[in-house]
Amino acid sequence: MSLNIRKKRAAAAAQAVGVDALLVTHLPDVRWLCGFTGSSAALVLPCATTTGSRTAKRALLFTDGRYIAQAKAEAQGMQVVIATKPPLTEACEWVAAARIERCGFDATQTTVAALDTMRKAVPGKLRRSLFVAVGPLVARLRQVKDAAEIAQMRAAASLGCSLFHRILTFMQPGMTETAVAAELEHAARLAGAEGMSFDTIVAGGVRSTLPHGHATQAKLPRRGFVTLDFGVVLDGYCSDMTRTVHMGRASADERDAYDAVLDAQQAGLAAVRAGAIVGDVDEAARAVLRRAGLDKWFTHSTGHGVGLEIHEGPRLAAKRTEKLESGMIVTIEPGVYMPGRFGVRIEDTVLVTRAGCEILTPSPKAWIEL
Amino acid sequence: MSLNIRKKRAAAAAQAVGVDALLVTHLPDVRWLCGFTGSSAALVLPCATTTGSRTAKRALLFTDGRYIAQAKAEAQGMQVVIATKPPLTEACEWVAAARIERCGFDATQTTVAALDTMRKAVPGKLRRSLFVAVGPLVARLRQVKDAAEIAQMRAAASLGCSLFHRILTFMQPGMTETAVAAELEHAARLAGAEGMSFDTIVAGGVRSTLPHGHATQAKLPRRGFVTLDFGVVLDGYCSDMTRTVHMGRASADERDAYDAVLDAQQAGLAAVRAGAIVGDVDEAARAVLRRAGLDKWFTHSTGHGVGLEIHEGPRLAAKRTEKLESGMIVTIEPGVYMPGRFGVRIEDTVLVTRAGCEILTPSPKAWIEL
Repeated sequence: MSLNIRKKRAAAAAQAVGVDALLVTHLPDVRWLCGFTGSSAALVLPCATTTGSRTAKRALLFTDGRYIAQAKAEAQGMQVVIATKPPLTEACEWVAAARIERCGFDATQTTVAALDTMRKAVPGKLRRSLFVAVGPLVARLRQVKDAAEIAQMRAAASLGCSLFHRILTFMQPGMTETAVAAELEHAARLAGAEGMSFDTIVAGGVRSTLPHGHATQAKLPRRGFVTLDFGVVLDGYCSDMTRTVHMGRASADERDAYDAVLDAQQAGLAAVRAGAIVGDVDEAARAVLRRAGLDKWFTHSTGHGVGLEIHEGPRLAAKRTEKLESGMIVTIEPGVYMPGRFGVRIEDTVLVTRAGCEILTPSPKAWIEL
Repeated sequence: MSLNIRKKRAAAAAQAVGVDALLVTHLPDVRWLCGFTGSSAALVLPCATTTGSRTAKRALLFTDGRYIAQAKAEAQGMQVVIATKPPLTEACEWVAAARIERCGFDATQTTVAALDTMRKAVPGKLRRSLFVAVGPLVARLRQVKDAAEIAQMRAAASLGCSLFHRILTFMQPGMTETAVAAELEHAARLAGAEGMSFDTIVAGGVRSTLPHGHATQAKLPRRGFVTLDFGVVLDGYCSDMTRTVHMGRASADERDAYDAVLDAQQAGLAAVRAGAIVGDVDEAARAVLRRAGLDKWFTHSTGHGVGLEIHEGPRLAAKRTEKLESGMIVTIEPGVYMPGRFGVRIEDTVLVTRAGCEILTPSPKAWIEL
């Protein structure tokens, strides 16, 4: 999908909810629409059929003086405006001057204070009527990845797998979690990653009971689980995968828990296909853990969308009713966390297809004892 | 300052604007108030003198099932509630049930959609009156660092300096910017950093004209500037420093621009003291570049606060009227960026004192030719 098609789809989505233009300030949305990666942006996308507007054809990107050269180099299909006032203020002044009557904004990404700024930037008579809360229209479009995005997600996920493979030969009992994270992140960087998509989780021994146990100075155990959950950012796109390995010999309880989580993860994967309801995918994984008597330790949802952001829609959580669509990329990541004892999580990132899914993170999930 | 004193100061600030309780959802504010570092939190801080409230004495932290063990380990002086609904919803239900009449929220950190969620969580008759926009009260308190925070900022800044020193011996013409960033970040990790406080900027040759030129696969030039702007996160606190070095022999223009930026940076530093107006500090640096005929290429503001976030208040920008206070930690970072030619920026992080400032990033700023 070219950026032009993305803009057209966003404009159509805006029109469908009855606005003449869309004000986009969430940075991943801005990047998706025009390629600009700066940290300061307000994009105005007039809808195709707006009439009466002075300049309805062209989309505008307002940014600030730090991004003069970068905006020129990156932003495609945009008239770039280097604002002297805050970019949001100038964007709203332009919207008012262009006689746009109803300008949509994303209520999930616009603060109460920003809305106040927007209203103060326009003439008093427009303050109540001009800006219309419309929900995350662009973020919803971003959930379904186009061919270029799928290729980028595949590359990011593939780099993640090669890093996992590499780190297995590096890990030793007594080494700090941070040393493992440092090695993994360094290799990611040298392989071209811009950075990590979230703080790397290396959680050994009893720390494996922390679903978000970021690497610390704690040492890898002689005997016990180590959970590795990490992602790279490659050309803006995030990878995400989790594997749990065991240092030394495991107890029967540990083996049983691992096998149950792996079964649950595979049941989750098996439930993924275009048209499936996200709550049903969650339930498919959760039911396996319920049968094993472990569901009370599965304290989070089964997965989430991934793309330009590490957490995107849809959420694969209990009772949610959204449907998966071909081209969505989501995680399947059940886990159990037994306080004071141990935790296990296994996570893949998968591409939703008509027939099921394609696993983008095909690293081994069979029991690994280091 | 103990966490208890922080809570008291926040409660006093909330009372001063006429609310009975404060709802805190911005994660750095939550961490500052109670030490919790999870990604999901809604904290309710009743004000000391609230009367009529069921449980006005105790602050509550609402989080979700991923953080059961972590919240218990980290959150101090809080009653922790593991919410089964979204934590924000449960926090608001609690506020209504506790008969709090006016609950402040930070309009700069609360989205329009979140406010809608908050209102829907409480009985209809309270919807309009209960939640009151109060501005970033906690973030404003965070601008002035206490002794423990200053020690942590000092440690982070000092690690930054040692990394700069180290990377000078590593950089070679022809090496990619990414390789430099990878080395620097790896060393940061091994020295105990949780991560970097922003995407590392390594911008060589003509890319030095990009104020936010994140490291790419571009190669360091045989002759030309390389701007290094980076920060580590150590125990949650961010460092921030920029140095610009020259590979090979420089032209007279390059030397002149460097000297002008260094003079401007020193003029900015000299203007820092408790009581100084932030716009005057900006002007002190800007005036030097104006006299050198370079101010049109200084396209950003002179600095910003740093702490748990890489960008905090106050902003040291033209015409702004806030006053610096003892204990604030801010950057002083003028730069010039000449399109198609070269750019230079020099940045220190400094602690504001009564008499002036203490430079926390004392790495050399004299001309460096590699």
